[in-house]
Amino acid sequence: MAIQRILSGMRPTGKLHLGHFTGALENWVEQQNLMREDGSRVYETCFLIADYHSLTTSLDTGDLYANSLDMLIDWLSAGVDPEKSPVFRQSRIKEHAELFLLFSMLVTASRLERNPTLKEQVRDLNLESLVYGHLGYPVLQAADILLYKGTVVPVGEDQIPHVEITREIARKFNNHYPHPLNGVVFMEPEPKITKFSRLVGLDGKSKMSKSLGNTILLSDGSEEVFKKVRNAVTDTEKIRKNDPGRPEVCTVFSYHGKFTPQMQRDIIEMDCRSGSLGCVDCKKICAANISHALLPLVEKRRYYEAHIDLVTEILYEGERKAQAIARNTMEEVREAMRLG
Amino acid sequence: MAIQRILSGMRPTGKLHLGHFTGALENWVEQQNLMREDGSRVYETCFLIADYHSLTTSLDTGDLYANSLDMLIDWLSAGVDPEKSPVFRQSRIKEHAELFLLFSMLVTASRLERNPTLKEQVRDLNLESLVYGHLGYPVLQAADILLYKGTVVPVGEDQIPHVEITREIARKFNNHYPHPLNGVVFMEPEPKITKFSRLVGLDGKSKMSKSLGNTILLSDGSEEVFKKVRNAVTDTEKIRKNDPGRPEVCTVFSYHGKFTPQMQRDIIEMDCRSGSLGCVDCKKICAANISHALLPLVEKRRYYEAHIDLVTEILYEGERKAQAIARNTMEEVREAMRLG
Repeated sequence: MAIQRILSGMRPTGKLHLGHFTGALENWVEQQNLMREDGSRVYETCFLIADYHSLTTSLDTGDLYANSLDMLIDWLSAGVDPEKSPVFRQSRIKEHAELFLLFSMLVTASRLERNPTLKEQVRDLNLESLVYGHLGYPVLQAADILLYKGTVVPVGEDQIPHVEITREIARKFNNHYPHPLNGVVFMEPEPKITKFSRLVGLDGKSKMSKSLGNTILLSDGSEEVFKKVRNAVTDTEKIRKNDPGRPEVCTVFSYHGKFTPQMQRDIIEMDCRSGSLGCVDCKKICAANISHALLPLVEKRRYYEAHIDLVTEILYEGERKAQAIARNTMEEVREAMRLG
Repeated sequence: MAIQRILSGMRPTGKLHLGHFTGALENWVEQQNLMREDGSRVYETCFLIADYHSLTTSLDTGDLYANSLDMLIDWLSAGVDPEKSPVFRQSRIKEHAELFLLFSMLVTASRLERNPTLKEQVRDLNLESLVYGHLGYPVLQAADILLYKGTVVPVGEDQIPHVEITREIARKFNNHYPHPLNGVVFMEPEPKITKFSRLVGLDGKSKMSKSLGNTILLSDGSEEVFKKVRNAVTDTEKIRKNDPGRPEVCTVFSYHGKFTPQMQRDIIEMDCRSGSLGCVDCKKICAANISHALLPLVEKRRYYEAHIDLVTEILYEGERKAQAIARNTMEEVREAMRLG
């Protein structure tokens, strides 16, 4: 069975939070480590630091490099294994830009204007006028995926339109430019609907997000975690310690759902409903369990922070590997297009 | 006085015709060879084979490489000196694409939609829907110019809006990303209004153009030139040999204006008006003079065609030189953007 390749990426926003962990990183590590019975890997995984994509919404690049390293440390701490998964910056592999330029000839502006995610962003970010490169970000995404011949794209339901643009571009390229030997240069990657569990923010908002300031960082130590959880929003109708509570509306209980073992969680739920468990004690348990889950990450981070040369070496090594794949793909592209 | 740099380019349409010669190539060679009194050059010149730009209007790349070589041979034959002016293909220097991607973040889609030349093209080419990369071609042009730090852009009046987009992008980049040492990375290039004499087509249409099939090629030998000029449109009211003619409406006389020495031309004009010179004889003189002008080009072409390895070596050497400039510029860009 042919190996499947997954290209996943994140914009370098700096230190990651729990929402990134449950929403993406956990999946990445799972895909990276998934084995067949014969001991071979199910997926080849490549992880991209999408620094050029950041520019679509902010031109401020002053912290981009520091944020990239910080994010990379979180990846490594969470279990991304650079031996298995090359990690690299988009801006370091010129072929991303090259394929973006070529692909920009294969899609109409109006096709991109119809992209529903873009419409949402324009509304959410209050963009007065759309930047040309922002309009083209699904084209850059297509280049990211196809440069590494990604065959599977793990996505949430709402991301399917993007994969569709990538598939259209691959199809159009293959139709116009059949390869003299290989037939087609690009496989049309398949979307793989993946459940990304979303984590509620500490303030009860539906999403943990850096810009909302409602996050627990993967790098937070136990004291920091406790301080944050202590201030988390709970059931607003549970005012006194012994009032009965409603776990289903409680932010903290949603964290229990993720970080507390089933048996302990069942007891917490019962005691909260009966009023025998107060929020302060419940939060202590929750914070302890989160810290417990984060402990190996925090320790690994401490190690990488003390060995930052190792981190950059891992990055450069990933970029060398990515470069080799990218160069091969672009050679095939040139052959198919007969660019000489 | 600081040296000025000019980046000029053409799409690789194959063998060039007289219109390219009088409209652009002559200017190129003049700029290349212009000297100051102290023996230094006024301009550094770089000449670009804009193969990626071709894709904005046609995805057919089958002949792109052969056309590039054919065009390059015409450049060399017409006096482009690769020792003075590096010649290179856009598609071979990945930094064009890289800078295009970065610049695509510095200009809005609506700014590009307002580009008057684009509106004309959409109308002339009957484009049903605009390709994303076509919308962005002034951005690619800005990348072409600024990658080589072009300081002067020779343009016709109608091209000034393009240079304005390049200047805006340079300004925006410099504002956002001051270089830690050099201050600014990009000079805003100045448009240099240049008279490009346009040559009428053999059929009397206002423009000599490959797609209209009304051209004399730079590579046409004297027989071919004579055959073509013999069929050129003249004054339609001069029917018989000794009818008086009107040089001002005659295609052939417009060629005399370019290729026939003043004194001979004055005699031709007089004899045409009086009716003593018939079109056949007039055309013979015209064809002879064009062939005479083309003779050195035709001979040089014969040489290059017999030494095609030399042509590709010139191209590769030009690409090495261009690559070095491009890499330097992109390093400065990365430093200014602090991409790490």
